[in-house]
Amino acid sequence: MAKDKASSSNPMDPIVALCKRRGFIFQSSEIYGGYNGFFDFGPLGAELKKNLKDAWWKDMVHRRDDIEGLDSSIIMSPKIWVASGHVGGFSDPMVDCKASKMRYRADQLFFAPVVVAGETIGYVSTLEDADMQAQAEQKADKLKRKAGAQGELEPIVLKDYTEADPSEYPLIPSPATGEPGSLTAPRDFNLMFETKVGALSDNSATAYLRPETAQGIFANYKNVVDTGRVKIPFGIAQIGKAFRNEITPRNFIFRSREFEQMEIEYFIAPDADWQGCHREWIDRCLEWLVSIGLPTEMLGEDVHPQEKLSHYSRGTTDITFQFPFGEQELWGIACRGNFDLTQHQEHSGKSMEIFDEASKSKFVPHVVEPSLGVDRLLLAILTAAYAEDEIGGEKRSLLKFHPRVAPYKVAVLPLVKNKPELVEFAQALYKKLQRKYNVFWDQSGAIGRRYRRQDEIGTPWCVTIDFDTIEKDGKFTLRDRDTTEQTRIDEAELFAMLDTQLH
Amino acid sequence: MAKDKASSSNPMDPIVALCKRRGFIFQSSEIYGGYNGFFDFGPLGAELKKNLKDAWWKDMVHRRDDIEGLDSSIIMSPKIWVASGHVGGFSDPMVDCKASKMRYRADQLFFAPVVVAGETIGYVSTLEDADMQAQAEQKADKLKRKAGAQGELEPIVLKDYTEADPSEYPLIPSPATGEPGSLTAPRDFNLMFETKVGALSDNSATAYLRPETAQGIFANYKNVVDTGRVKIPFGIAQIGKAFRNEITPRNFIFRSREFEQMEIEYFIAPDADWQGCHREWIDRCLEWLVSIGLPTEMLGEDVHPQEKLSHYSRGTTDITFQFPFGEQELWGIACRGNFDLTQHQEHSGKSMEIFDEASKSKFVPHVVEPSLGVDRLLLAILTAAYAEDEIGGEKRSLLKFHPRVAPYKVAVLPLVKNKPELVEFAQALYKKLQRKYNVFWDQSGAIGRRYRRQDEIGTPWCVTIDFDTIEKDGKFTLRDRDTTEQTRIDEAELFAMLDTQLH
Repeated sequence: MAKDKASSSNPMDPIVALCKRRGFIFQSSEIYGGYNGFFDFGPLGAELKKNLKDAWWKDMVHRRDDIEGLDSSIIMSPKIWVASGHVGGFSDPMVDCKASKMRYRADQLFFAPVVVAGETIGYVSTLEDADMQAQAEQKADKLKRKAGAQGELEPIVLKDYTEADPSEYPLIPSPATGEPGSLTAPRDFNLMFETKVGALSDNSATAYLRPETAQGIFANYKNVVDTGRVKIPFGIAQIGKAFRNEITPRNFIFRSREFEQMEIEYFIAPDADWQGCHREWIDRCLEWLVSIGLPTEMLGEDVHPQEKLSHYSRGTTDITFQFPFGEQELWGIACRGNFDLTQHQEHSGKSMEIFDEASKSKFVPHVVEPSLGVDRLLLAILTAAYAEDEIGGEKRSLLKFHPRVAPYKVAVLPLVKNKPELVEFAQALYKKLQRKYNVFWDQSGAIGRRYRRQDEIGTPWCVTIDFDTIEKDGKFTLRDRDTTEQTRIDEAELFAMLDTQLH
Repeated sequence: MAKDKASSSNPMDPIVALCKRRGFIFQSSEIYGGYNGFFDFGPLGAELKKNLKDAWWKDMVHRRDDIEGLDSSIIMSPKIWVASGHVGGFSDPMVDCKASKMRYRADQLFFAPVVVAGETIGYVSTLEDADMQAQAEQKADKLKRKAGAQGELEPIVLKDYTEADPSEYPLIPSPATGEPGSLTAPRDFNLMFETKVGALSDNSATAYLRPETAQGIFANYKNVVDTGRVKIPFGIAQIGKAFRNEITPRNFIFRSREFEQMEIEYFIAPDADWQGCHREWIDRCLEWLVSIGLPTEMLGEDVHPQEKLSHYSRGTTDITFQFPFGEQELWGIACRGNFDLTQHQEHSGKSMEIFDEASKSKFVPHVVEPSLGVDRLLLAILTAAYAEDEIGGEKRSLLKFHPRVAPYKVAVLPLVKNKPELVEFAQALYKKLQRKYNVFWDQSGAIGRRYRRQDEIGTPWCVTIDFDTIEKDGKFTLRDRDTTEQTRIDEAELFAMLDTQLH
């Protein structure tokens, strides 16, 4: 598995700052001091996010004959989460500090015995961090001095709290107080957000915010089969919010408590070549990521080892991305067998079998599940697009978005604002473009500064209407964001170019 | 105010049945017996809903220079809901039956004293319903007979439970048991769904699912002002889910517990002509509804009377629609003054003032708020589009969707499937269309039946590729859903027509 390089957020800083400065992403509830694990997308972020979702929907649903769309509710019957196993098992191991009332993820709390001259003189603990080893060693030194212990300090070997022996729990210091004796044994903490639906407030009203969109697909699988004209193999795709009460949300929008997923359940025959189908999906997903602007060299594959798979899983491969904080999962492609459908079949008493015309047989299909987080994808796109270079001796920062996902497609710039025919021409072109695309109008300031402004928000093209445009041939300057090359084109050529690039 | 005609769902039945049959809308968690107040959108419903949202976003955000988009989180700091007044006051009056443990909305529980020959012999009660008057009269008759009371029964005048005098509470029969003595006084029941965020489970962790998207806009107003280049007047638009724990969800997707809103906060100067701005928004909204296919004659305006306005509101007008269950609110356009921004200014300590270049003054702007429910709009669109007619002596049902919102834009139909050149031509056209639009491929069955299938799901055009297409001129038949008229056109004409109709 890919591993977090650090919980320090330093490498993310330029991107976080740009996101805030240009109105891509804000911390939720910022005027109230923020709200941990939640984010808001400003004007540019909302466009970028919508474009990513639209591109995915178009390519996965509209342009494929074998995939249907779905939009199921966030709150569903709690029975669904019992059947799926989430009520029973969707949890992280947590440890409480009884003294401070703080709670920690057990797998992010590290400890080690401090052994001097062969004798354990105490324990040190630290929270997961890039330099936790150094921190632990410092604490060990301090402990040794304090205890006045003589002899050689043995190397500090950190383990996480889930690996602790129960006899060690009372000996490990709480990260909050620095003193041992207050940490509990690890306990499972369910990650689903709970709420109550209806007027009653007893347990019968308990419901959950979905922690994944996938179960909405499984719960509607029968409806789609009964009302559509699908035949095996086929997929159901969904985009929507999901919620997980992460104890330590981190890395900006990479791991937040409210996020958006784009998931497909692709149903295949039980005797189909599932490895082949799995490989096809991995390739298709990689291809798609590259098609919207992620460089191949920043993508990787992480095959989950057999022993780490869930009992129902036959194989999972993550497509990873080189985030500023390390190589991390971007898109998980899992072969889930028929676990979910058979669980729902058992719990609901409704048959999940489908009749396959081709093989004249009836079966509960198996699934391959490509599951992508919109927010992670957005962060990857921002990471890959962010660049700094020098144009004519002047430094500029730019976002090299693929035109399909760029918030604005074109900026229309009249060279001067005090020449009515020129502005009129530009406005007419702007209005025509606006009918089809999200475009930007900017008539103020030096043209170079206007270009720079568009570079920074990732607009792929600027068109500048100048005196030649109105006095000569109606052609205008098309300026390319990445190369800064300028060419003269006319309206028909502009629309033809956009039509090619943006679909 | 518009009033519910009935809680009986009969007039909705054909639409509900069509929605289920064709995969537009399913009850949530249907395989588990359903989950009251929640709905899922199937393949066609998901497309229809997406098209409505996309059309709104395009027309309100992309095509206007004065409106910015936003996408804020569903769970925000609870402080926002304290400032907005929702924690204190977003509630319905509820009444409990202590005997049955049932709970009712007090304004939907009706009662009347039964007066015989000038003497009150008891009370009757009934839940809000189309024929509740008749039901109450029947119950009164029965009570009179049972009491053996002689003389004239005075007319039964129903009032709702919020109008009851406290001395009457113990006298009004519970709708559950039919006996008086078990109903409590009305109590406020907050409609916000509560949850806990973070590891702690005490009150400090309490958070809410947003009951409206509007506060996400107010909370980000300062961010948008600081990072964008907005000037007064300007708007911020948002589409997103909202949640209300309605005690009696009803009328299909009209009043559900999870729904989606499209809201704009349009900020104006405090001394601006707010009535004029209000009227402009009402007109713009009406115009937009007509532009996507709602007939003018099904739309109305409902001006909230002065005495029913919230204390901070200067005026609210609802655009209403003739739903099958009566004329009901579709789009509320409210003048909210500067209530929300000043509340957030006070509670957060952050200035919500904006400097207005034009007037060289600084102020907290006022807002006009057009607030539209996606699900209600979808229901209105379905209601207006549903039609039955007769073509050549054969009955058909169709959905006359405006092309912009229709799930599929075009169906491509090769006349026969056993002529390879013909199918090839059709496939090539299909693939070309699919690059830009959501299109349907259908090669099976009689052509008339294939047309009918598309009529029923609202596809505006079918193109049929026949022998003439491949043997003569490459032209094919374009068949219009509503008129069933057929014309011969070629590929260029088809794309030009779609380009005009779909943008």
